[in-house]
Amino acid sequence: MAEHASRLRLSALCFLLQVLIILLFAVLVRYSPEGSPGCPPQLNCSRRSQDPAVQQPRFQDVHVQVLLSFGLLVVLLSRYGLGSAAIIILITAFAIQWAVLMQGMLFFFLNGKIYVGAQSMVSADFCTAAVLISAGAVLGRVNPVQMLLLALLEVTVCTLNEYILLGLMGVSDSGRSLTVHTFGAYFGLMVSRALYQPHQDRRKREEQQDKGHQTDVFAVVGTIYLWIFWPSFTSTTTTVPHSAENWAVLNTYFSLVASTVSTFILCPVLYEESTPRMVQIQDATLAGMAVMGMAGEMLVTPFGALIAGFLVGLISPLGFRFFTPVLHSRLKIQDTCGVHNTHGLPGVLGALLGTLLTLLATADTHGHRLELVFPLVAQGSRTITDQALVQLGALPLTLLLATLGGFLTGRILKIKGLRCSPEAQYKENSVSREVAEEERDPSGKEELGTSTLV
Amino acid sequence: MAEHASRLRLSALCFLLQVLIILLFAVLVRYSPEGSPGCPPQLNCSRRSQDPAVQQPRFQDVHVQVLLSFGLLVVLLSRYGLGSAAIIILITAFAIQWAVLMQGMLFFFLNGKIYVGAQSMVSADFCTAAVLISAGAVLGRVNPVQMLLLALLEVTVCTLNEYILLGLMGVSDSGRSLTVHTFGAYFGLMVSRALYQPHQDRRKREEQQDKGHQTDVFAVVGTIYLWIFWPSFTSTTTTVPHSAENWAVLNTYFSLVASTVSTFILCPVLYEESTPRMVQIQDATLAGMAVMGMAGEMLVTPFGALIAGFLVGLISPLGFRFFTPVLHSRLKIQDTCGVHNTHGLPGVLGALLGTLLTLLATADTHGHRLELVFPLVAQGSRTITDQALVQLGALPLTLLLATLGGFLTGRILKIKGLRCSPEAQYKENSVSREVAEEERDPSGKEELGTSTLV
Amino acid sequence: MAEHASRLRLSALCFLLQVLIILLFAVLVRYSPEGSPGCPPQLNCSRRSQDPAVQQPRFQDVHVQVLLSFGLLVVLLSRYGLGSAAIIILITAFAIQWAVLMQGMLFFFLNGKIYVGAQSMVSADFCTAAVLISAGAVLGRVNPVQMLLLALLEVTVCTLNEYILLGLMGVSDSGRSLTVHTFGAYFGLMVSRALYQPHQDRRKREEQQDKGHQTDVFAVVGTIYLWIFWPSFTSTTTTVPHSAENWAVLNTYFSLVASTVSTFILCPVLYEESTPRMVQIQDATLAGMAVMGMAGEMLVTPFGALIAGFLVGLISPLGFRFFTPVLHSRLKIQDTCGVHNTHGLPGVLGALLGTLLTLLATADTHGHRLELVFPLVAQGSRTITDQALVQLGALPLTLLLATLGGFLTGRILKIKGLRCSPEAQYKENSVSREVAEEERDPSGKEELGTSTLV
Repeated sequence: MAEHASRLRLSALCFLLQVLIILLFAVLVRYSPEGSPGCPPQLNCSRRSQDPAVQQPRFQDVHVQVLLSFGLLVVLLSRYGLGSAAIIILITAFAIQWAVLMQGMLFFFLNGKIYVGAQSMVSADFCTAAVLISAGAVLGRVNPVQMLLLALLEVTVCTLNEYILLGLMGVSDSGRSLTVHTFGAYFGLMVSRALYQPHQDRRKREEQQDKGHQTDVFAVVGTIYLWIFWPSFTSTTTTVPHSAENWAVLNTYFSLVASTVSTFILCPVLYEESTPRMVQIQDATLAGMAVMGMAGEMLVTPFGALIAGFLVGLISPLGFRFFTPVLHSRLKIQDTCGVHNTHGLPGVLGALLGTLLTLLATADTHGHRLELVFPLVAQGSRTITDQALVQLGALPLTLLLATLGGFLTGRILKIKGLRCSPEAQYKENSVSREVAEEERDPSGKEELGTSTLV
Repeated sequence: MAEHASRLRLSALCFLLQVLIILLFAVLVRYSPEGSPGCPPQLNCSRRSQDPAVQQPRFQDVHVQVLLSFGLLVVLLSRYGLGSAAIIILITAFAIQWAVLMQGMLFFFLNGKIYVGAQSMVSADFCTAAVLISAGAVLGRVNPVQMLLLALLEVTVCTLNEYILLGLMGVSDSGRSLTVHTFGAYFGLMVSRALYQPHQDRRKREEQQDKGHQTDVFAVVGTIYLWIFWPSFTSTTTTVPHSAENWAVLNTYFSLVASTVSTFILCPVLYEESTPRMVQIQDATLAGMAVMGMAGEMLVTPFGALIAGFLVGLISPLGFRFFTPVLHSRLKIQDTCGVHNTHGLPGVLGALLGTLLTLLATADTHGHRLELVFPLVAQGSRTITDQALVQLGALPLTLLLATLGGFLTGRILKIKGLRCSPEAQYKENSVSREVAEEERDPSGKEELGTSTLV
Repeated sequence: MAEHASRLRLSALCFLLQVLIILLFAVLVRYSPEGSPGCPPQLNCSRRSQDPAVQQPRFQDVHVQVLLSFGLLVVLLSRYGLGSAAIIILITAFAIQWAVLMQGMLFFFLNGKIYVGAQSMVSADFCTAAVLISAGAVLGRVNPVQMLLLALLEVTVCTLNEYILLGLMGVSDSGRSLTVHTFGAYFGLMVSRALYQPHQDRRKREEQQDKGHQTDVFAVVGTIYLWIFWPSFTSTTTTVPHSAENWAVLNTYFSLVASTVSTFILCPVLYEESTPRMVQIQDATLAGMAVMGMAGEMLVTPFGALIAGFLVGLISPLGFRFFTPVLHSRLKIQDTCGVHNTHGLPGVLGALLGTLLTLLATADTHGHRLELVFPLVAQGSRTITDQALVQLGALPLTLLLATLGGFLTGRILKIKGLRCSPEAQYKENSVSREVAEEERDPSGKEELGTSTLV
């Protein structure tokens, strides 16, 4: 009975939200007049999209538009199992629409209309990626309705953060170390903190850890997806189209290669296994990419990327071994998929590395690329030290917005009406979809996880 | 003994067909002189490929050429199981070669030679996609030899339909709502009608429905494949390279996002599950894309795509719940993978939407895009009303050719020699490929489906 | 105890190698000044990269850079099982870095520095592909430390071979029939010969053959990966950007389509199955692509590609049926994944076909493409017969270097310290990563293979 009501509640919520979004689109959203990606010249776009040289390559990349979000989806499947796939796709679908609206309000707004183009879709997908990272922290402890609210609230705060950093402060963060990885991870951790329930969490945790074998297939697929698509994705968003884009791609490759090797060095020392498990290699891949977000287009030497990847590849296994338990026991933060180790810390380190590299940037080392990576510096309206301070200041600001936003979101999700009476039971049902209902045994979700692949 | 003969019959048929195709290629097919995609100026190509502006982007896209057919292959696997993979790949291989020949005859023929280029491959792949859609309707009830004949006959009729629509009538159907989705679905349904065998079908149907869990993995992979590749694919074939292509991609994204949400709204109401199963989400993805085939480049507002996707996303679950049983019991049409709900109806709706949008198209709303989407209208040789009538007339014509072609094909497949005496038994053997023959138990195919993933 | 030591040995070796590589990168490697792919004009690059016309398309392709190596990884998984995934990713990570260094030394070296760009990454990935092909021959009979050494040694010899062929001799081998497929296969076979251990091998072999069902999923994924990405990959490396690239892609498609059909013709004759298994289709795909490596851009008629694919598609099943047993019993070469049938023979045939086509090339048939495919001939510094002799001479040279290099590598891998006392047992442990150790039964690896997908 209660289950029936809650099931229809999700359905009704989806219906209302989708109708609302369609109405908002009907009133507000139009295609960019030229139909070209980017915003028309007269719009108050962010600085980076105003440069006409930037438009062309982005337009090309729509051909190879791959959804970053779907890479993260597979990553979540490898950590949590197939049962979460439907819900993740649902929040992806909503987050993309909502992000087009929210980002349009701030970046592509003119005369009461939002003008969308290919760039809107790429930006919306980045925002959705932040939502999926947060989802990785709370997966298994929120019901679909809560997850949906989390997505809507996070997209709003994430867009605000992005506007302040990229639009107002002129921070250079093309690969989104700060606005996606760091923001998504700490937002999700704070939501997790607010939803903490000691006893239940422990049981879930144990269930999850048993699923090592089943998810190896998804870990292989996820790792391959990230290797082949993420560097391309990085290249679609770098500020500088021609040379720097190339460097960002290569730096990302070098970083992830080195972080993968790090996992092979550290795992045998930490665990009783001679080679790491596939999920650990996948974590190293994520960490190696998160650290290159801001620094990717600033690094001017390949060995810098190797060192950064090498060091950050050590973070992830160490974090899982020593930091995640502390996070859980002391700070009462349950991190289902370990996003703090794979996105949070690497993102923060990437931001620090970016600041350092900004400080070291000179016209000599960058040549003509300086005006492309740091346009304000090249124009003379800002010194390189100012730029470095701005880059540095963006980190605490992002952390502040993420934790504050996450904490408030967590509070809202705890409102009585949103939780189901026996929350755990509801969730299990929500992901169980046996065709023959009578076959289901009481252990519910866990049994499903197994049978899905059998 | 009978099995031995039928096994070698497939082998011999493949051999003869392949040798025939090689001979035809040797006599007829040459590379297009410039080596460029599209056809040389002096050829009687269809209108859309004569515009030199269209060539360049298509050439670029060969770099990212992904096979639409393989997306549909994965979709079929998620509905029918791994046992069908080999046969589907075989008919893909034949259909592509045959389509290059057939389409070359009509579109790229000059002085007794067919000149092929990148565009031929893309067109042939579209034709193959129609064959795979039809295969989805009859999978499990035809043997490989019949499947092969179906592919050859359908490619022929499909190419004819395409030539009449695109080449002669000047219909604008860049994403192939009509020529691929509608044609493929109704062709397959009529073949299915002709092959109807009441008792056997029921048993198969039950077998198939038991396989819910095993195929969830393929449904996840198929959904991801479609999301990341289909919009790119759409962009390779739009008539208008620059602005409209972009709009077609964005419209497709918006449509599939909305249709995915629709599934989450309707499934909890129709079934005793709070979230839809992955195959249902995959169906919504297919439907959301099929409806954008013709309308994708005509829609000038994003909310139009959202509404179209939203409504068509309701079709697919409703169709499976209420229409498929009626189709089976009253019309004696067995639709193995539900292609009528995912391709047939959405394709028809897409064609109607395209007609409506054509009627609404004015120089004001489209601007300079008018001459690119509707070149004949822009040239003044046709009014917008004429164009709308042509678009509308293309629908019954396609339905007629599809049903007629499908019915005749079904009749041919029922010829005594093609059926195996105990057809069901043969089919089971045909997809069973145990290494150790003695291990096989009598339940045959079903047991294989299970063990494949175990 | 011994296991503990060997586990840390791999860890320590990885650490030392990674630090060494970082130091070498720090001293030697810089980004190419323009940041553009390809080498700066003043470098002693190979001939093919000096042509400025070649640069632009390659730069574009970085957007869609997909890793060929990862396709081969999936192929290996489908032959050997999930347990090998981690080790294959490790050697991929090392081989890419090492290949950037080695190839940089020979191709991109100027004033004591290596200048890397996008082209370096593509070349390094090709070299890594050769390593993975060799790995396919010895998988399951070497421990991770040996595998790592094999990768380092093979990259060195492979780069040397590539430099002699492409840089010094001016051989045209854009799709790498010789430098990747032939070299990788025969190198691996010679290593396998050197490591031959009669009794143990037989047991492994039987274990492997039992795994037919489990790996079908990976075979489907691998086949799809190869179909959709390999032709694109071919296009990134062809010498001629505009027309010929296109032809290489189309020739590759035609070849793999025909070789797929061949498998359906031959398998029913050779085995008691009416349709081939997925791994056999995957093998045909590999063979059909390997044969088009050199000939892809030389073939001027589509039916030539169909015939080549058709014939080479017969090689692979025949090789598995008749040649692999002979290889094993007479020559004492154990070929775990059958690389001789899928890469070795097709590569040799591709080289012979390329030689033949070179001999037939005239200004009439090739037109302006002649100067692009065979620049030295078009410049008049070489006759077409000379070029054909050079192409022919490249084959025995590659075979010599591959067998010599493989034999020496095998000898080195047999050094006492590298083998573990009970090698088989070690290997089983190395790929076993049960979370709960006590669950493991004595049959070790085989049981893991099963449980991974359960």
